[in-house]
Parts: sequence; structure tokens; C-alpha cells
Amino acid sequence: MRAHHRIVLLTDGHSTPFLAKTAISLLRYRGSDIAAVLDRQADCQNAAKLFSVGGDTPVVGSVTEIADADALYIGIAPPGGRMPSEWRALILEALERGVDVVSGLHEFLIDDVQYVDAAEQSGAALIDVRRNRHRSTATAWKPIAGNVRIHAVGHDCSVGKMVAMLELQRGLAAAGQDAEFLATGQTGIMISGRGVPVDCVVADFVNGAAEQLVVDHANHDFLLIEGQGSISHPAFSAVTAGLLHGCAPDGLLFCYEAGRTKVKGLTDSMIPDMKQQLEVCLSFANLRHPCRAIGVAVNTRQLTEDQVDKELRWAEDTFGLPACDVYRTGVDRLVEASLSLRREIVSQ
Amino acid sequence: MRAHHRIVLLTDGHSTPFLAKTAISLLRYRGSDIAAVLDRQADCQNAAKLFSVGGDTPVVGSVTEIADADALYIGIAPPGGRMPSEWRALILEALERGVDVVSGLHEFLIDDVQYVDAAEQSGAALIDVRRNRHRSTATAWKPIAGNVRIHAVGHDCSVGKMVAMLELQRGLAAAGQDAEFLATGQTGIMISGRGVPVDCVVADFVNGAAEQLVVDHANHDFLLIEGQGSISHPAFSAVTAGLLHGCAPDGLLFCYEAGRTKVKGLTDSMIPDMKQQLEVCLSFANLRHPCRAIGVAVNTRQLTEDQVDKELRWAEDTFGLPACDVYRTGVDRLVEASLSLRREIVSQ
Repeated sequence: MRAHHRIVLLTDGHSTPFLAKTAISLLRYRGSDIAAVLDRQADCQNAAKLFSVGGDTPVVGSVTEIADADALYIGIAPPGGRMPSEWRALILEALERGVDVVSGLHEFLIDDVQYVDAAEQSGAALIDVRRNRHRSTATAWKPIAGNVRIHAVGHDCSVGKMVAMLELQRGLAAAGQDAEFLATGQTGIMISGRGVPVDCVVADFVNGAAEQLVVDHANHDFLLIEGQGSISHPAFSAVTAGLLHGCAPDGLLFCYEAGRTKVKGLTDSMIPDMKQQLEVCLSFANLRHPCRAIGVAVNTRQLTEDQVDKELRWAEDTFGLPACDVYRTGVDRLVEASLSLRREIVSQ
Repeated sequence: MRAHHRIVLLTDGHSTPFLAKTAISLLRYRGSDIAAVLDRQADCQNAAKLFSVGGDTPVVGSVTEIADADALYIGIAPPGGRMPSEWRALILEALERGVDVVSGLHEFLIDDVQYVDAAEQSGAALIDVRRNRHRSTATAWKPIAGNVRIHAVGHDCSVGKMVAMLELQRGLAAAGQDAEFLATGQTGIMISGRGVPVDCVVADFVNGAAEQLVVDHANHDFLLIEGQGSISHPAFSAVTAGLLHGCAPDGLLFCYEAGRTKVKGLTDSMIPDMKQQLEVCLSFANLRHPCRAIGVAVNTRQLTEDQVDKELRWAEDTFGLPACDVYRTGVDRLVEASLSLRREIVSQ
């Protein structure tokens, strides 16, 4: 993907934490490349006021307010993946000025004749990060012991699997380790500039696409592979399964949001017992490659500060694993657990 | 799919049991609609001599030999899914005569300009059974107790999962039951004229496509859903997983080929323990819907007649389930197991 350093994030009229999670993550993990947030309706001056992240990054009403903008990133991940129709004029305005447009939606920019024409005239690029032509099946590659693969799984969608891997990558890097984050979803790809949009790969090639991602980065000491869906998710478990076999992880980090009991987007479906879910993940993963759980990342956003300790103790007792909230308590215990896994594998 | 009743099966130069498995299954399960086999190299007069199935169905050197042919079916399933280049003239000859061409390969007929032109001129149809536009996610539909769903899983690809379901459908129908076979792969779709090519659905929609298939047929007493891949297959386990959650089966039929120890097409990979595989299938399936194993279908093609009994006894002891070879010993015990599952569910 082209390198962009003056990005405008488009969340116009959809600047809620639930819908704008792509924009929020880009502000958090790629803040120095973000020039502005575009929301005509927002009644606040900066990103911090709109999203509680992003400091004084300005909120603007048009891409023309940022003279040197080099890209407009679609900052939302709506259920169903469709673009709001009222955004057409904003996107065309960017393209006409030669500003690249980057989207992670299922509906592709390059399938829209008007966008293609505008981009051709100005020389702007249309980048659909979910578009892919993966057409190779997994080969059951034999993992190299020096390349430790840790994969995030969770009890549901949108519980913080990507964030946990990004924070663990930072923690390992701070400890002097050679650790690489590997994106498997739209936001992760926008943050890291590469990856595989695994939920958009044709089913026969899902395991193969995940395998290719780890094979291409087997020269690192640690690979931290973003997870998708959950092993129990009625709609997305095939994606989760493809990643668990394709990446052939050595270790799993189990992620959950404290207080969430129902499947996101399917409010009639209760989330099955978490320990049972982790056990199924492990027995499934071990059909491909030896794998064990290394820790638990608890997303405590629904809890008050004084409830956090009790929740983490509950998680440690329940799973028999070190637990943390990567934002509130930091990743030190997960860094230690990762190093311990590596010592175990390398000494074998 | 259009109804065809004078089908020519194209296996030209590839008439081996391994490559021509689509043609062989069509001869076995749709024999009355098959007019001929097309193989210019074959040195025999009828299908029975070429494939040990299909009786006196003639083997011809050109589609022109069958004056009233209404379709040419691509009868092979080669690894990688590519069409032999020397078949182009044979396909064009059929299209020019107004004969429909039906293909289950990953490479689509409709992406070939020459085929499209020829079909347009003659009015023939180009039918790619693997092509699909499934774009809806699973909704975690609540199964109806009177609609019993039985799904085939196996220890590897190509072990007889489709055949076991087709034979069980015949057995249940012969016992006066309302049982429907639901295809999930190219050959099954060609046999039954409908189904979902689940291995070609985009990953996010695999569970949804499988769910739609069972929801659309929820008016039957028994649904017998063809399986794909295996829960341990390094390349295709995502497809297997999507079916196990999407179909929400009540019962699983475990299928294996006696004597096979290595993964088909990945000769460095040993097939994991079968009982362990069935346990993972069940624990995975039960995250979505209560499900138990009902029996074992053993493919004994590598065994002599006097080895069959011993193998079936081994299977029964190992799995604690009724076992049969659907060809050699019939499906009576599986019919009884299916009826017993239905009684159990309906009485709840």
C-alpha cells in the first residue's frame, strides 16, 4: 500500500465509538500520519473531544481544508459493510483533488464507475484493502522453531484482539525483541500498511492466505497475528478456524470484554462459556501444530477502575493464566509469558 | 440449474478414477440422464469398461455423435481446478451446436470471451456451478425440532462423504421417510441440480451460505448435508468449520477410508487420530447447536472382501457407533441410527 502521511479520516455523521472504530484505532496507532477527521456534523474542534483520542487533530468539514492531504481513509466499519450514500460527494471531492481514497468496506470503490473516472482524471489511487485475489491453498508448511507465532482469539467480535496484539508488539519491542504485528482485518491493514483481509478470501484459500502471511514473515523472532471473529461465532467461525490452522500458532492469547454476554449483532445468541471456547480453540489448533494458551487480555471498558483488579483475579483463577487489561494494567505479564513460550520452543 | 436429460460427460484423456470422480458419480447417481462419455483416447466402447460403472453408456469421440445431446458436463475435478487446454475445441464444438456446457472448476467458463461469444450465437448456456454471489452472514437461525439435520464429516478429502449422504438419502426414502440430500460441492450440485458451492464462498459468508441452504429446506423431516474437507485438513478446515456451524447439525456421520494415513495432496502430512478428530468436530459443533455422532461410514475400497468385517468391527469398537460400508454392506444401520436420532429430538 502507498505510504500516506497526511491522512484525513472520514467518519462524517457516524462519529460514534461503535461505528468509527477504524478511525479511532488509526488515531491511536498511526496518530502522526493523521492530519484531520472529516465530520460536517461534529460540533467540536478536535479529535480528543470527538473520540477521547487523537489530541488536537482538527475536525474539519471538507477535505479542502487540509491543503496537503494525501489520502482520505474511510473511518467506519458499519455492520454489512456499506458506504453511507451521502458520502459520495465527499469522496468525489477528494478524488478530484488527486487525494487517494482508502476503504476497508465489502463494497469496493473500484466497482463504482464515477469514482474510477474521477481517480483516472486526477491520478488519485482507489485502494480497497479488503480486495484480494488469493488463489493458493495451504501447503502445511513446517514452522521454524525460532519464529514464534502468537495469535489472538476471543469470545466474540470487537473485543480488542487487534489492540491486544498491537500493544503486545509494542511491549516486546520495548523489551528489545524482534516482534512483528501481522494484520488480518481492514483496520489492522490500514494501521500497518499491509496484511491479508482474511474475511474476504474465498473459503478454499483462507487457510492458504493465513499461511502465506506467516511464511512471508518467518524471519522474525515473534509474529503477533491479529485474530478475527470467534471459534463460537455463528457467522464468522469459519474465518477464525482458517486463521487457527493457517498461522499454525505456538501460543494463543485469549481476549474478552468483561460484561459482554451476548454475541455482537446477534442479540438472541448467548456467548458460550469462555473456558470451553478456549479449549475448543486449543484442541482445534493442535490438530495442525502444538499450541498452548499464554495469557488473557481482558477489555474492561465497561468496568469502573475499582472493579478491574477483581475481574483480572477472576480471569487468572478461571483460566490459570496471567491476565491484564492492555490499556489499564499494561502488557508486562504478557511480554513475560511470550518470552517464556519462546524459551520453551527454542530449547526443544 | 436447467434440467438436462441427454448429458455428455467430458473426461477426454483424463478418464482415471482419481481425476474423473465427477463423471463417475454422475454415472452412478444420475445415470438415466447420461447419454455418453466423451474421450477421444479411450480404447473401449462403454462406460462400464472405462469406469466400472455406467453400464452400456457409449464412449464417443465427439459431441456430434449424440444428435440430441443437451449438455456437456466437465467430468473431472483436477487438483488446482484448471481445464486441460486441449479441451477448448471440444467445448467450442458443443457450444456452436447449442449444447449447454456445465463446469465445476474454479476457472469459470463465463470469464472466457471465446466461450461467451459462441454461447451467445447459438443460445447455449454456460453454467459455472462454483460461481456464487453469497453476501449474507449467518443469523444464528433457531432450528426447528421436526427438521433433523445430519451432516457428513470425514478424516480427509475424497473419502466418500457425498456418497454416504446420497446412499443414506436413498435408504431413508426406501424406508418411507421424507429425506433430502443437500449438496455443498460441485459434483453434488451437478447430481442434485442445486446446492451451494461452499468452498467458493467468501469467508465472511460461508456460515451464512450453509445456513441459507438448510433454512431453505427446513420443511423436510431429514436433511442430509454433504460435507467438505476435514476438521484437521491443513488447507480446507475453514470450509469444514463453516458448514458445521452454518448447518447446525443434530447428528454427524463420520466417514473415513480404511488404509489412508496421509492427507490427500499433502503427502508429508499425517492424518491425525480419527477419534480425536470426531471429538473436535463435536465440541466445535456443540458451540452452536446440540449435536452427537450417529455412525461411521467406512470406505473399504482398498480392502479385500474378507477384510471388510474386521475393519467394521474395529470401527464400531473404536467409535462406539454403528459402522458400515455404504456400498458393500448397505445403509440399514445408518437408517436405523437416523430414525433413532429423530425420535430422540422430536420427543424432547
